[in-house]
Amino acid sequence: MGQRLEKGLTQGNVGDGKGKTSAAFGLALRAVGRGLKVYMIQFIKGGFDYGELYVVKRLPNFELKAFGRGKFITDVPPTEDDVKLAKEAFELAREVVTGGEYDVVVLDEINVALHLKLIETAEVVDLIRRKPKHVELILTGRSAPPEIIELADLVTEMREVKHPYAKGVPPRKGIEY
Amino acid sequence: MGQRLEKGLTQGNVGDGKGKTSAAFGLALRAVGRGLKVYMIQFIKGGFDYGELYVVKRLPNFELKAFGRGKFITDVPPTEDDVKLAKEAFELAREVVTGGEYDVVVLDEINVALHLKLIETAEVVDLIRRKPKHVELILTGRSAPPEIIELADLVTEMREVKHPYAKGVPPRKGIEY
Repeated sequence: MGQRLEKGLTQGNVGDGKGKTSAAFGLALRAVGRGLKVYMIQFIKGGFDYGELYVVKRLPNFELKAFGRGKFITDVPPTEDDVKLAKEAFELAREVVTGGEYDVVVLDEINVALHLKLIETAEVVDLIRRKPKHVELILTGRSAPPEIIELADLVTEMREVKHPYAKGVPPRKGIEY
Repeated sequence: MGQRLEKGLTQGNVGDGKGKTSAAFGLALRAVGRGLKVYMIQFIKGGFDYGELYVVKRLPNFELKAFGRGKFITDVPPTEDDVKLAKEAFELAREVVTGGEYDVVVLDEINVALHLKLIETAEVVDLIRRKPKHVELILTGRSAPPEIIELADLVTEMREVKHPYAKGVPPRKGIEY
């Protein structure tokens, strides 16, 4: 079993700025450095090629599973496939969180899945309420519904102060992805 | 030499919220996953025990050096030792940035060192101006001087929306440190 957190919290990384997912990866790095077990489930993002994936594979006690179609969801309403993948991701999230084997569970971009109504806010609220005491649960994504903000213990907004895309810098391999 | 960034930017992670350093670690993880070389220099923080240090040691192409006295600086004015360590850290920062061997250079908590006047804003401004084109330079810390914000290409404010310390949760091993 190893070390356990005495009190796990629910955290939210929200906002329109950079660093929501990166901060979750940084925290995951710290947690595995302390012998905690981490599971990150990525909503929306599956199929993309991310630099961090190459490192995570080599880290002990760090599981990562991504669900998505390899492109951003721009169809409104989202396709049946988008909904199906998000539901699968959430099914896994439920198992991992309630199972209690993992000390830190990151549900990356789940707030976006909620915003797109791929999953129900009530389901996520229920999961937060049922979270075992020792599990740290981290929800990331631009805009979290107020019910989630209300339930979370710790919420950080990543706010864009200046952004170079306005200056025409495209996403760069090794930095943005 | 490996891969190089075509265009490195200067980034700032500022604000009173969590995730400034963690986001830099997450970006570093991504960069090393892409074969880029990363150097993180920590101002103020040296001597503390951080979970991420145990993982960084095992990652290739990731150098980390921390300068500090193992406690937060609460003396006003700061001691001679604090100033000496910050100057040493900045000397190394200057070598690493201008040397151009490292693709991503993180100057962690340098904004705090500036705020405490351990180093001069003019020196940091000069370093940003002299940065080789391919180097991504990341400056973290609560409050950056306006000159730094002005020069940076990309600035993200980590803003505290809710924080559990208000509810009496002390920093937890594996999560906060």
